[in-house]
Amino acid sequence: MLCKKMVFAGRPSRPASCLVLASGGRAPAYANSRAFSSSLPRNKERLVILGSGWGGYEVLRAIDKERWNVTMISPNNYFNFTPLLASCAVGTLEFRCATEPVRRYSPEVVAYQAWCDHIGKPCQRFGEEILILERSATDRFSSETIAMCTLITFSAPGMPATPPLSFETRSAPKADATTTQFPGTGTPFTLTYDKLVIAVGAYSQTFDVPGVKEHAHFLKDVKDARAIRTRILECFEQANQPTISDVERRKLLNFCIVGGGPTGVEFAAELHDLLHTEMERHYPGLTRFAKISMYDVAPQILGMFDESLVKYAEKTFKRDGISIFTSHHVERVEPGKLFVKEQGEVPFGLLVWSTGLAPNPLVQSASDVKKDLKTSSIITNDHLNVLKEDGTPYSDVWAIGDAAMIEDARLPATAQVANQKAKYLTKKLNRLVKDKDSPKPFEFHNQGSLAYIGNWKAIYDRSGTGNNVMNKETGRLAWLLWRSAYFTMTLSVRNKILVPTYWFLNWIFGRDLTRF
Amino acid sequence: MLCKKMVFAGRPSRPASCLVLASGGRAPAYANSRAFSSSLPRNKERLVILGSGWGGYEVLRAIDKERWNVTMISPNNYFNFTPLLASCAVGTLEFRCATEPVRRYSPEVVAYQAWCDHIGKPCQRFGEEILILERSATDRFSSETIAMCTLITFSAPGMPATPPLSFETRSAPKADATTTQFPGTGTPFTLTYDKLVIAVGAYSQTFDVPGVKEHAHFLKDVKDARAIRTRILECFEQANQPTISDVERRKLLNFCIVGGGPTGVEFAAELHDLLHTEMERHYPGLTRFAKISMYDVAPQILGMFDESLVKYAEKTFKRDGISIFTSHHVERVEPGKLFVKEQGEVPFGLLVWSTGLAPNPLVQSASDVKKDLKTSSIITNDHLNVLKEDGTPYSDVWAIGDAAMIEDARLPATAQVANQKAKYLTKKLNRLVKDKDSPKPFEFHNQGSLAYIGNWKAIYDRSGTGNNVMNKETGRLAWLLWRSAYFTMTLSVRNKILVPTYWFLNWIFGRDLTRF
Repeated sequence: MLCKKMVFAGRPSRPASCLVLASGGRAPAYANSRAFSSSLPRNKERLVILGSGWGGYEVLRAIDKERWNVTMISPNNYFNFTPLLASCAVGTLEFRCATEPVRRYSPEVVAYQAWCDHIGKPCQRFGEEILILERSATDRFSSETIAMCTLITFSAPGMPATPPLSFETRSAPKADATTTQFPGTGTPFTLTYDKLVIAVGAYSQTFDVPGVKEHAHFLKDVKDARAIRTRILECFEQANQPTISDVERRKLLNFCIVGGGPTGVEFAAELHDLLHTEMERHYPGLTRFAKISMYDVAPQILGMFDESLVKYAEKTFKRDGISIFTSHHVERVEPGKLFVKEQGEVPFGLLVWSTGLAPNPLVQSASDVKKDLKTSSIITNDHLNVLKEDGTPYSDVWAIGDAAMIEDARLPATAQVANQKAKYLTKKLNRLVKDKDSPKPFEFHNQGSLAYIGNWKAIYDRSGTGNNVMNKETGRLAWLLWRSAYFTMTLSVRNKILVPTYWFLNWIFGRDLTRF
Repeated sequence: MLCKKMVFAGRPSRPASCLVLASGGRAPAYANSRAFSSSLPRNKERLVILGSGWGGYEVLRAIDKERWNVTMISPNNYFNFTPLLASCAVGTLEFRCATEPVRRYSPEVVAYQAWCDHIGKPCQRFGEEILILERSATDRFSSETIAMCTLITFSAPGMPATPPLSFETRSAPKADATTTQFPGTGTPFTLTYDKLVIAVGAYSQTFDVPGVKEHAHFLKDVKDARAIRTRILECFEQANQPTISDVERRKLLNFCIVGGGPTGVEFAAELHDLLHTEMERHYPGLTRFAKISMYDVAPQILGMFDESLVKYAEKTFKRDGISIFTSHHVERVEPGKLFVKEQGEVPFGLLVWSTGLAPNPLVQSASDVKKDLKTSSIITNDHLNVLKEDGTPYSDVWAIGDAAMIEDARLPATAQVANQKAKYLTKKLNRLVKDKDSPKPFEFHNQGSLAYIGNWKAIYDRSGTGNNVMNKETGRLAWLLWRSAYFTMTLSVRNKILVPTYWFLNWIFGRDLTRF
């Protein structure tokens, strides 16, 4: 039977805080309440998308809503435009510029804001799985939030091709009530699908270094960007207290970044820009205490870039006063302290942790699915269908993005790959009725990599793509490419207006340093 | 001796959360650390401004920085443009549109982000008073924030005219360590002044109704607006859960407002606009459960407006389905429940509380200052000088804004009055060297009152101002006045560009419903 035991949901950021809401542009019929939308068309097949990141959001955006009943399940009711998060974290852009609401395409789509932490044991019914949703602990006023559970029932072959989208309430199974991840307060419901797209992404990798989850900031979500912005300003306000010593000031204004990938590098660059423009102006005596330090276990930063570009970036950083400690190992993190094997104790005011991806626990716990031994990603065929353990594909289930990889074709876990896979899959899904022929297998077209390295400079690498023109580019031209790249990407018109407005305003008036 | 026992600091919003940072555009010389700014001019008199609201910020903005060494002490590092908060709370505008950073005018001004809760007993030194600053409890990452205390030493007559701005650290006095307001972890410092402007504002009035501080939202600060916006979206997400009953949906989507003043009315109007545009589109089955209810103890809302305008507003609200319960008394608030004397238990999803102003505890605890018996406001003469208990004025201390009132001239506690007083005072302070003559006493010029009542309509009242043209206005023309009014007000160029940009974008694309 088809994918009997596969249920997932996205968790794009750190596991500490999680959200327990479910909602829909239009909700289907209810077991225990008057349906508030009875006009849901019954003559379409149901497509369920798990996750609203680069993969899931692109499918949501481009899918033919005339052809499909689309349901999206994601812990966020928005898509994170990740390349702009570093800019948001230092105030170059407003947070909302880096998000797109998933309900933009309503009322055609149903969106459930839901968080899953757990795949329960199969219940009595055929193929049922349980998603446990935790309660949001972030808001002061959310104490009344009702936690809830989601059940996704997989379509069984004996069922009609388009069974009515139905929800069934029942109490949560007792077996799970003892686990810490199970809040035990919610009411589960059942959701059936015809086609499923798994785009749940990955977690931040911490390599099990103690204290990282508690004391470091990640940079995967707009909430992370907001927390970082607040913390930077807080560090400066604290350092400006007249009663603290210069030693304390140096500690507070040491900004550490662990992980020399593009995220870490771009954040360091943006932070450097902030320190040497607005901060210098508004806290004139303090920037001389400020320091940016970047750590990586690898012998060089920006591993995926060409060596000459890395050299250029390192030289630029060095001239800017950003310290790069490669081949350094962080052993543990305590409040305001980092313990580096090669350096001992390093005090910091802000620690940003960006050392790559860890498997999504939901993917990890999935059974009868072929998974990569190293990364625990779901293995798909080159048509992106999820494979069973014996290697045969599930015909109605696809996996894209950081949670998935194609068998024998290791592509980088980037937004570009996720986005191209989503585009490929959407074409296929939109065509499914009109053209029964199987489309060509997925092929990745490398558009090159861009990274901002500060002071209006960037690096651009397209070597290895078979394109001989503009293989590598550095400096201002690459910066222009970097900026203009965003306008061809998944941004709404609204944000295509807002982003340059903020760039312009902040160029003229400086970044806003209001802390609230 | 001059104002021996007066020390205050602003607390613009609810007392529950408070902030403990001190900072400065440039900091003065330190007792225990190397000064990081030694270029502070010594040849100017020192003006200290307490509070960054309508009074304090206007003084900061317009004061002659060539003439004065300006130091601002405020718990926020920004000014709240309060008339836009209701718009921010429903997503018509971005939060940052309603704030202006106090450091915009640095490096000429020194700004300390500091929070005072307490005036201690006079210490051994002449005229010293202690401000106790509490710790911010809002941010996850602020746990390391160092709480601190501020001492303001009042200039003594025997001291030189412009003593060096000095900070002196010492441990907090033991006498206060037992009070709950005293964190006991900070290091106090002493700050002297030549002239002092008290513009600390007032608190939200709760009439000691139990549960208000815990379960209601105020709308005095941009942080309040953010919390309300989050809560509105949360209510809709919760109500959209397929497993909850319609009764629960009605409870969650009952939006209650207590207080029928302009703040409450404008919020109700903005919320109504939101419910009947974006919410109707994105949660199509839900808005029929939504309800806005407004409560007031008075027999009518908008007490300060002309009766015909109130009738117009009430009629508009009635047609819009906003319920107005005048002469109703809220007895207590519990999580999700309001207890109204006339109605019994009223469940709600969001409660916004806006019933006027309560005296600032710092003002309350000030001694040797003439205060109003009813409101506890500081009494000033018509030159805005603070009066001693015996009625003689302090020549170097002024009080403006909601914390102060002129003897025998009861003006409304509005932004307009605060702003005009600040303008008057700034003129006086800027002139002090050039023109020794005492300026004319303060005179209030009523520019009329405007309130938005939803659906692109407003009411405008200028009756009683002696101006016979355009005394009263309703509907679209008043709305145009309402909108254009903001462009003549205390907004920076940056926000003068951003505000209409957001108005335009949200008019075209709808408000953003992203919840993060």
